[in-house]
Amino acid sequence: MKKILIASTSTVYGSGYLEYILPRLKVFFASIDTLLFIPYARPGGITHDAYTSTAAKVFQKIGIKVVGIHQLENAQTAVKNAQAIFVGGGNTFVLVKELYNQGLLEVLKEQITKGTPYFGTSAGSNICGPTMQTTNDMPIVYPPGYATLGLIPFNINVHYVDPNPLSTHKGETRETRIKEFHCFNSVAVLGLREGSWLEVTGDNIFLKGTLTARLFRQNKAPVELEPGIIKVF
Amino acid sequence: MKKILIASTSTVYGSGYLEYILPRLKVFFASIDTLLFIPYARPGGITHDAYTSTAAKVFQKIGIKVVGIHQLENAQTAVKNAQAIFVGGGNTFVLVKELYNQGLLEVLKEQITKGTPYFGTSAGSNICGPTMQTTNDMPIVYPPGYATLGLIPFNINVHYVDPNPLSTHKGETRETRIKEFHCFNSVAVLGLREGSWLEVTGDNIFLKGTLTARLFRQNKAPVELEPGIIKVF
Repeated sequence: MKKILIASTSTVYGSGYLEYILPRLKVFFASIDTLLFIPYARPGGITHDAYTSTAAKVFQKIGIKVVGIHQLENAQTAVKNAQAIFVGGGNTFVLVKELYNQGLLEVLKEQITKGTPYFGTSAGSNICGPTMQTTNDMPIVYPPGYATLGLIPFNINVHYVDPNPLSTHKGETRETRIKEFHCFNSVAVLGLREGSWLEVTGDNIFLKGTLTARLFRQNKAPVELEPGIIKVF
Repeated sequence: MKKILIASTSTVYGSGYLEYILPRLKVFFASIDTLLFIPYARPGGITHDAYTSTAAKVFQKIGIKVVGIHQLENAQTAVKNAQAIFVGGGNTFVLVKELYNQGLLEVLKEQITKGTPYFGTSAGSNICGPTMQTTNDMPIVYPPGYATLGLIPFNINVHYVDPNPLSTHKGETRETRIKEFHCFNSVAVLGLREGSWLEVTGDNIFLKGTLTARLFRQNKAPVELEPGIIKVF
């Protein structure tokens, strides 16, 4: 049975890395003692070692050991043997390219579908939908494709922000970008605000946190979803 | 001799489409009476006809007829025969995919290098650099590659915005994204603020407008360039 936690962000304003969600992670990961970390998204170009060390320091507080996938001999075997998996944020193009290079998408999907607990933040959340096409990131590398894990039937837009009515900026708003996505794609998109996350338990998907999330569907007006079970898909 | 105008945006706050730059366009296009418009970037998913009509209305004010490339039988021939070319903004992925599909990148590069005047805004400016990889747009379609016209030796980041020191948002700033680009790519990036544009005359590149532009180079601190000739490349 799927057990997945999909967070908009690793960090909320005024708080440390993963701090806002650590109490929930303690419960979510109660039955495991070692977490496989996939540092491929490399936020700010950080090395895999440095990123893994950042994650390890936080999980140490709740008694969980973190092992970086790059430290193990075979990445696919590492996923198959993992008690639980955490994919951190950074650049989604960099992450997805490396997942393709290492041949990890299929094995990740298989293991997570079988029940290996999965936690994603930001780029690690983007890859839970059918495609990475609603990422906010720059295409700084060219991945072999945009298809991702498809663990949920809709795409995620992480760090979702509402248009600022006072802005003088003429670049596209996030909402405009997602509407453009729907000129070419039919998959629904959930805009997850910072501090919100999804929990997937089997076939049920719950919106968690205190905020609403904004649901975009092709040829329909966007709607705000309240925290609780998501039934619209 | 190259004659190129590369604008950050089509529209500045509080003003109509191309209004801020129309006096300059009147001079830039003084010797031509018909402009070939490439509407492939489809802002907001607008049709090629509707987008061409929007451009035509503005250029009519300065006595220039606009013809949409989609209205002509052969797109490559249209580029070869054009008196001048305008590529409008929208989604850069959509634009670049269609340029590849129509086999237009090489012929555009050839004609513009030979001296066909070129005007680009936003997505139409992104494609003037070696690659489209510093676009702000969502990857709503998958282009066959990221290589673009390489008319100038650096990439452009259009609609460049400075980090907002008061922001509580934890998504990456524009500067952070460009720095991540430089973890994987060596080409320089010029952040062009709205209201700024570049003019290329042969081998000379001038920053125009009243604002500075922010230059990012790999392994160097960013610098602000004043309007005037750009000599650093």
